[in-house]
Amino acid sequence: MARGEFTFFHRLRVRYAEVDAQGVVFNAHYLTYFDVAHTEYMRAAGYDYTGEVARTGQDFHLVKSVVEYRQPILFDQLVDVWVRLARVGRTSLTNLFEIHAADADDLLASGETVMVCADMATHRPVPVMPALLEAMRRIEGSRFPGGD
Amino acid sequence: MARGEFTFFHRLRVRYAEVDAQGVVFNAHYLTYFDVAHTEYMRAAGYDYTGEVARTGQDFHLVKSVVEYRQPILFDQLVDVWVRLARVGRTSLTNLFEIHAADADDLLASGETVMVCADMATHRPVPVMPALLEAMRRIEGSRFPGGD
Amino acid sequence: MARGEFTFFHRLRVRYAEVDAQGVVFNAHYLTYFDVAHTEYMRAAGYDYTGEVARTGQDFHLVKSVVEYRQPILFDQLVDVWVRLARVGRTSLTNLFEIHAADADDLLASGETVMVCADMATHRPVPVMPALLEAMRRIEGSRFPGGD
Amino acid sequence: MARGEFTFFHRLRVRYAEVDAQGVVFNAHYLTYFDVAHTEYMRAAGYDYTGEVARTGQDFHLVKSVVEYRQPILFDQLVDVWVRLARVGRTSLTNLFEIHAADADDLLASGETVMVCADMATHRPVPVMPALLEAMRRIEGSRFPGGD
Repeated sequence: MARGEFTFFHRLRVRYAEVDAQGVVFNAHYLTYFDVAHTEYMRAAGYDYTGEVARTGQDFHLVKSVVEYRQPILFDQLVDVWVRLARVGRTSLTNLFEIHAADADDLLASGETVMVCADMATHRPVPVMPALLEAMRRIEGSRFPGGD
Repeated sequence: MARGEFTFFHRLRVRYAEVDAQGVVFNAHYLTYFDVAHTEYMRAAGYDYTGEVARTGQDFHLVKSVVEYRQPILFDQLVDVWVRLARVGRTSLTNLFEIHAADADDLLASGETVMVCADMATHRPVPVMPALLEAMRRIEGSRFPGGD
Repeated sequence: MARGEFTFFHRLRVRYAEVDAQGVVFNAHYLTYFDVAHTEYMRAAGYDYTGEVARTGQDFHLVKSVVEYRQPILFDQLVDVWVRLARVGRTSLTNLFEIHAADADDLLASGETVMVCADMATHRPVPVMPALLEAMRRIEGSRFPGGD
Repeated sequence: MARGEFTFFHRLRVRYAEVDAQGVVFNAHYLTYFDVAHTEYMRAAGYDYTGEVARTGQDFHLVKSVVEYRQPILFDQLVDVWVRLARVGRTSLTNLFEIHAADADDLLASGETVMVCADMATHRPVPVMPALLEAMRRIEGSRFPGGD
């Protein structure tokens, strides 16, 4: 996928705590990077995640994650974690991620997460929250899945 | 997949450090659980991972990971992480994982990792190390991919 | 402090996710090891931590931690994390920790934590829970601070 | 200690992966925050940490850490981690840390680390590297321990 299909990235610097004995980021931390970038993506879209969880009692459950590790990511490296919305289901959202070296074209990793919206009290799936859909339309514009 | 197709599991207890504000294991830690279980799986197979890396200069690179989150895993819960070898390529190995509540049938999560064997000096792929194949045949027995 | 002053240890094996680019356990994870060992110490003392938190609405806040790093701890190393109660205040408990190589005398690290008992609703300190004191007396025996 | 005695801080935002079931940052991660801030402090001082380790074969070993937890730190909170050099020994450096809510006076935590400079090949202590001392004088100015 061309990076041009993404509208948002979050830049972060690799912490010493995140590299392993091979001197590269340990594989589990890629999912933390995706999570951090997704939080910033919602903020950039104007979605008040913490406030909405408190207001509606609805949150996400991650149901699937995929990471493809392409090139090692090193201690102290600056990387950009790109996020986009790929699919919207009745109760689920699929996001795509790419990690690139900052200010470079190198694709270091890519991945996908699938989240289900759920009522925190019953743990039952609920339709994707309207305020969230609205925010995703705002940030994705013409890239919103299904088109405008 | 039936748990009967697995020969090995590693039991662990969820740490307080691993649960998030929802009171469940944070998604990235599932990959750490897979990694811990895979290390024990190699040990059970009689493969001296650390010694072989030092002896041969060859190690694994993870190239892909998939996790499917099925039920929440809770603080202090005892879980069994099952591991099996699913495919053997010329330079790669694919492992499957399932996390079950200890002594129960509940499938809490499943997943897959693909590793490529590589020379640590050149970072180039190398054929799967013979000592590792031998160990995998030992632990998998008739379940070894392709059969015996 | 002589290890003989401790009555309890929890054995754990260092995970690959916990070592850094120097090949040794990253400094923050020692506190996670202390936390894991303290959880097991309470369990060994017969204190139902999760149940008591739910029943009383009282939990601990950590207010201070100290770690002294003496020798590196390596990937895959088996270590014993020893725990003991050192001081009991009106609303606080001080625990001491030592990490030793399994089945060896090598002192790898030592440390201390101070916890304050608190009401989770008001976040105010409360007297150390009687059931917890009782459990600590049980496991420490004649080593209980102040003596019996 | 007044925050005025510090010249440097690093701002970071609390990750969802870092909060526990109480909804606050898990205690071990404070040491990771200190480590991240210390890395940025060295960068701000003009010390090329990675380059110098490669060039000299000398690095730090942490020998002691202390954290005092004063107020809970919450998910998504922006915090400033202040760093300063407190003492210089022949082979060791002591740093002080304070974590404040961003743009506020609230002291959330404070702490201290003691590092020993060591030769990575022999693991023996070595005198504090001259290039590091020089960098510390640069960033601390008149606050450099012992004064100028």
